[in-house]
Amino acid sequence: MKYIALFLCFLTFSAALPAQDRILINGERLNVSLRDLAEFGKTPEGGTNRVAYSDDDLRAREFTIRLMREAKLDVSIDLAGNIIGRRAGSDASLKPIMIGSHIDSVPMGGRFDGQVGSMGAIEVARTLAEKGITLRHPLEVIIFQNEEGGTVGSTALAAGILPERLDLVTNSKKTIREGIKAIGGDPDKLTRPLRQKGDLAGYLELHIEQGGRLDQQKINIGVVEGIVGLSWWEVTITGFANHAGTTPMDQRQDALLAAAKYVEAVNRAARSMTGRQVATVGKIQAFPGATNVVPGKVVTSLDVRDLDPAKIAQVLDKIRESVKQIEAETGTKFEFKQTSASKPALTDAGFKSAIDASAKDLGLTTFLLPSGAGHDAQEIADLCPIGMIFVPSRDGISHSPREFSRPEDITNGANVLLRTLLRLDQ
Amino acid sequence: MKYIALFLCFLTFSAALPAQDRILINGERLNVSLRDLAEFGKTPEGGTNRVAYSDDDLRAREFTIRLMREAKLDVSIDLAGNIIGRRAGSDASLKPIMIGSHIDSVPMGGRFDGQVGSMGAIEVARTLAEKGITLRHPLEVIIFQNEEGGTVGSTALAAGILPERLDLVTNSKKTIREGIKAIGGDPDKLTRPLRQKGDLAGYLELHIEQGGRLDQQKINIGVVEGIVGLSWWEVTITGFANHAGTTPMDQRQDALLAAAKYVEAVNRAARSMTGRQVATVGKIQAFPGATNVVPGKVVTSLDVRDLDPAKIAQVLDKIRESVKQIEAETGTKFEFKQTSASKPALTDAGFKSAIDASAKDLGLTTFLLPSGAGHDAQEIADLCPIGMIFVPSRDGISHSPREFSRPEDITNGANVLLRTLLRLDQ
Repeated sequence: MKYIALFLCFLTFSAALPAQDRILINGERLNVSLRDLAEFGKTPEGGTNRVAYSDDDLRAREFTIRLMREAKLDVSIDLAGNIIGRRAGSDASLKPIMIGSHIDSVPMGGRFDGQVGSMGAIEVARTLAEKGITLRHPLEVIIFQNEEGGTVGSTALAAGILPERLDLVTNSKKTIREGIKAIGGDPDKLTRPLRQKGDLAGYLELHIEQGGRLDQQKINIGVVEGIVGLSWWEVTITGFANHAGTTPMDQRQDALLAAAKYVEAVNRAARSMTGRQVATVGKIQAFPGATNVVPGKVVTSLDVRDLDPAKIAQVLDKIRESVKQIEAETGTKFEFKQTSASKPALTDAGFKSAIDASAKDLGLTTFLLPSGAGHDAQEIADLCPIGMIFVPSRDGISHSPREFSRPEDITNGANVLLRTLLRLDQ
Repeated sequence: MKYIALFLCFLTFSAALPAQDRILINGERLNVSLRDLAEFGKTPEGGTNRVAYSDDDLRAREFTIRLMREAKLDVSIDLAGNIIGRRAGSDASLKPIMIGSHIDSVPMGGRFDGQVGSMGAIEVARTLAEKGITLRHPLEVIIFQNEEGGTVGSTALAAGILPERLDLVTNSKKTIREGIKAIGGDPDKLTRPLRQKGDLAGYLELHIEQGGRLDQQKINIGVVEGIVGLSWWEVTITGFANHAGTTPMDQRQDALLAAAKYVEAVNRAARSMTGRQVATVGKIQAFPGATNVVPGKVVTSLDVRDLDPAKIAQVLDKIRESVKQIEAETGTKFEFKQTSASKPALTDAGFKSAIDASAKDLGLTTFLLPSGAGHDAQEIADLCPIGMIFVPSRDGISHSPREFSRPEDITNGANVLLRTLLRLDQ
């Protein structure tokens, strides 16, 4: 059986890829790049505090540009401040294939989110340059700016940025407008998208999973079937604040009791259906917020996600239905204000099978899974077919100094990125 | 029937009180004093922001001392900084009767809490002076310092203050130690109580209800049957923080979901028994507290009150029982840390009937009720018999700029205070 399997495997491999594709990236060099990058904004806990537009982000961008030039990429900064490294293709009629990710972090984040895909993409380009391989398609390695603050760079590329959004203050204390100027973009020229549908042949992003499925199941590579859509709300519950000692239990309009019933209802709504939809209440504040006062107001949040927009709508409907009953039971009033929404982005069927085949060629195990977290790829899906490759995150921990992916998993991911790129280039 | 009732009423009246007791306080003057006092720390919303030891508190104390001198009281500041105005009695063998309240407010509070009883007690003394009435007992009018920050002045009187408590920073930004110095006390001499059991014949306090029962039922005077004991806790719930998008519903250890179940359990525990016990969760904070993170930790509060300590213990037991189940259901851990406790203080039976009879003499309706809020009287109950007189609060609102008691209700309250004092003096 073993011989037959090997033979079949070889057949598939040689059928799909020319000889030059047996190349591999330099895993050691890739992991050194990641380690060097981690010096910018390094925290005492071993994490990374490198929010977009901060001094550390600016220095990390300089470092990344140097690496891209070493990889023989022709580097420029686009109007949004994204870093783009170009490598010419052999067929002038073909549109570029784009690969990349981001290097900015959440406040007090980790060393892998975005960074693995960024350094991985540069390593892929460097490997191509080293081996003297020219693809048919032009290649663009992109480092999107400010992914963690709301996929700013990729939104500029695919949708444009409304002027009012430019005035939002980011975690760097700079507004987005000031930040874009600081990284060499031109915030006044972003109203219209920088790229149009059809400008790109495709986009491929390597990323850590930010969840625990690959790690738990000891799978090497996640083939992303899509990035979930999300619906975010600010939920304000109004009751009546009163003295905790003197207000009888049956005369209260306790906004926190209503909030408690709401938190349970949100959980119940997501769990009452089959599927992988999730619903979370992550924020809560009670007013006035004193031990001896029955809360008169609670401000809380809602986050609902799924690959299917209909599922999101169903969960929201169930929650709203429960809320009517809670209002009646507690004498409170709920107000829902949408704060963010994104539609699900499905990955391309051809890209998924190219990723899966490339991983299996390397003897790696694969698993098809949705991305519960948002990524730049979600924005780029408006422009071209997309694909995403996940590598395991230890214990599924992300956005934390404890975020960790093993060097061998990172090397595997970059090799799958390289080989998927070669496969798609055919 | 009317004639008979009037006749009976007159009989009771004349049997209980000598002729001099047909006197009444000057309601107009009392309400002017209250209005003048409200100038110190007046807020734009018409409330009072006069936290203990603040400049406004210091100025209000000066104003109050002037009023006390106008009432022919012999004024001094005790070691705790309480203001005491003395009036000699005719029988040297008798211990003083004490009347009073406090003039400090909560941050952004109202114009009546404490202030009605303080100005009321001074008006009673002034009326006695004006009418040339000498009581058998010496009279002490006391303005306790820092009631709202934890009945500091009355605690010093009845129990003493532990040195470590003196270092607590108050809402004035001064420590209690600094505050006591600023108001003329000596913080180094408060370890032992300033008064001993038997030093006082009794303590009477007039106060606004801080609840809505008298107002709702249109009752003139509340005869307080006791001040509830309270048990305060800080409750920390530990789960595991994780990404809201990537963590499946069945793999969460959601500390906020556990907190929600806890808030409901607290409410259920108080309502599951007959009686007037109350239990409240007023504070809640989720960590990290972001829309897109399943909370890993929640810090919340618990406030349980009743006149009967056994009832408080029963409610706590029921809550703890529910918590065990919540821990198992949600994969979280609860930790309870007691932050404050006070034992219930029952009022004296003789004082209660004296208040009730005095009110009825004036044709006022009365209602027996517990005080759900804490008061200085609660501390003084360790020294001598106590009594409390409540006047209505509109809509039961307190600790708010919207706190309001009608001038006629305040006048009624002070008259009941005067006449109860005369009755007890017999």
